[in-house]
Amino acid sequence: MISNKPVAKNQEVWLRARPQGTVTPELFELRDAARPEPGPGELLIRIIYLSLDPAMRGWISDAPNYREPVPLDSVMIGFTLGEVAQSRHPDYAMGDIVYGRQGWRAWALSDGSDIDRKVEPLQGPISAAMHVLGLTGLTAYLGLTRVGQPKAGETVLVSTAAGAVGSMVGQIAKIQGCRTVGLTGSDDKVVACVEDFGYDAAINYKTAGDLEAALSEACPDGIDVYFDNVGGEISDAALDLINHRARIVVCGTMGIPAGPNPRGPRVSRQLLVKRARMEGFLVLDHLHRLDEVVAILAPWMAEGRLRFREDIVEGLAAAPAALQQLLAGNNRGKMMVRVGPDPTA
Amino acid sequence: MISNKPVAKNQEVWLRARPQGTVTPELFELRDAARPEPGPGELLIRIIYLSLDPAMRGWISDAPNYREPVPLDSVMIGFTLGEVAQSRHPDYAMGDIVYGRQGWRAWALSDGSDIDRKVEPLQGPISAAMHVLGLTGLTAYLGLTRVGQPKAGETVLVSTAAGAVGSMVGQIAKIQGCRTVGLTGSDDKVVACVEDFGYDAAINYKTAGDLEAALSEACPDGIDVYFDNVGGEISDAALDLINHRARIVVCGTMGIPAGPNPRGPRVSRQLLVKRARMEGFLVLDHLHRLDEVVAILAPWMAEGRLRFREDIVEGLAAAPAALQQLLAGNNRGKMMVRVGPDPTA
Repeated sequence: MISNKPVAKNQEVWLRARPQGTVTPELFELRDAARPEPGPGELLIRIIYLSLDPAMRGWISDAPNYREPVPLDSVMIGFTLGEVAQSRHPDYAMGDIVYGRQGWRAWALSDGSDIDRKVEPLQGPISAAMHVLGLTGLTAYLGLTRVGQPKAGETVLVSTAAGAVGSMVGQIAKIQGCRTVGLTGSDDKVVACVEDFGYDAAINYKTAGDLEAALSEACPDGIDVYFDNVGGEISDAALDLINHRARIVVCGTMGIPAGPNPRGPRVSRQLLVKRARMEGFLVLDHLHRLDEVVAILAPWMAEGRLRFREDIVEGLAAAPAALQQLLAGNNRGKMMVRVGPDPTA
Repeated sequence: MISNKPVAKNQEVWLRARPQGTVTPELFELRDAARPEPGPGELLIRIIYLSLDPAMRGWISDAPNYREPVPLDSVMIGFTLGEVAQSRHPDYAMGDIVYGRQGWRAWALSDGSDIDRKVEPLQGPISAAMHVLGLTGLTAYLGLTRVGQPKAGETVLVSTAAGAVGSMVGQIAKIQGCRTVGLTGSDDKVVACVEDFGYDAAINYKTAGDLEAALSEACPDGIDVYFDNVGGEISDAALDLINHRARIVVCGTMGIPAGPNPRGPRVSRQLLVKRARMEGFLVLDHLHRLDEVVAILAPWMAEGRLRFREDIVEGLAAAPAALQQLLAGNNRGKMMVRVGPDPTA
């Protein structure tokens, strides 16, 4: 059988090389492709947003990590939000908004296995599925509640306090009745912490001078939970102020220099004297709890108790340069790429 | 009223000076005293055994610690096992065996507040209340089960594996169906680990050469629980072999040099990549659970599944020198002082 339909267009971004140091746009290539046609049991998704995430640096490197690296000469992977354009799959209908792992492309064929959930537009703007009602919220909520276990009246310290995860942690801890203190790296972000995200205090660690003294003043009752997105020297001062039975959530370590054997203060004696706990948390272990956590966070967002910032760039072609900006810390909120029109915006 | 009874004798050991480095017998003085007479609500205890414990170095130092130091020119504190000689207290009768904190003396007056429990001689030799059925067993059992949470089939690594706590941890983990591996500091102790305490493998860390390679061979499936009584360099090699969701019980840190800021490998990235936990455990937080734990351990001891060694010196006067030997690592089992005859031996 010969089809007379013209071949519909698609675009994809491929990974072409691994980073030597900095991630640059030259590692990627924008390519034209044919738009796929769904067969039985398949659906076609029109991508609306790509999520850009700091972890992508690890995904494209071949250094040891918690997953295999993205293969060279294939489409870059990433979390996406899209609209079902055609469906021959019993679980999905045209117009459904789906959140999944469709990667850096304009149109994606799926058999459903790379879709994580349907997004309910009534819960708010669908872009929130990329952050507050997505992995950012899941990381913040479960990392804080499962490992940090804050109780009302306790003091919760957060590093990268104005960042996507950090700002959610601070707000969720505040909702749970805690005193919240943020560590961040600029005076602008100190203002954002206090004015936008409701922290009781915030510290610019780059200009604080004696960081332990500044922390001590901001945490007069000590630190019960430290939600640590950085590790390294910024966090060393915090460890000296932990209370009995403190919980340290190790959620990120970008403050620790790369290399085989970074050294710093030994923590065992401090953990023993304080009967404290330090535990790693990785959201990928908990994806199956997303619906449950979204059901908790969505009402808080609707009530205006979870504020957030988005930093959206336009067009698939802009994704590689936007990733470079994100990794340089130049974003001003959750970084996303708008690949196509948002029907709910 | 004038009493015609001759004054009965007592002996006490007083702390006279704080250690400058090594603990020596000269820090203590044996003194004669009058044997007290119990008033209403009081009882007189004849001390049978004193427990000597590594933590005593901390108790007599004025370095920061988890408790106030023993005051100078007062009786040395310590855990004791004694027989009630006279009682005007409703809860205790003559002949009761009591475990408590009567300190380094031959006879002790008590109002009951410094008694932790009555010891049931049917549970085995009463000296076991000093170790397997006392704080040693409580430390091993709760540290392992509460923080370590071993599951059958997992690998449990133990440092100071032939020591009082370590040997109990290894045997309890074995009873729970784990593979047990011991780290210890002499070939004699390696033999004791395997032959007396049932470890599947044991390593002399002083002669192992490449400790990580030796550990890797002894733990072919990695390490799920590390019960760490030492910290420091011995433990650094273990951290490189932990499995996903590994639990590290920080129970002692004598392998970390004293001083304000000991340094070593940073652990955050390892904890994050492995979603592992490191937590301090101090038995003093859990004294109220002693009866419950003794009820679990006593049958195992009666069945010969919890083997132990005792190292008993004779006479209150020998306590200071015995403490020095203990702190030098020259003991050959749980170190105790026999102050008076054991009616159950």
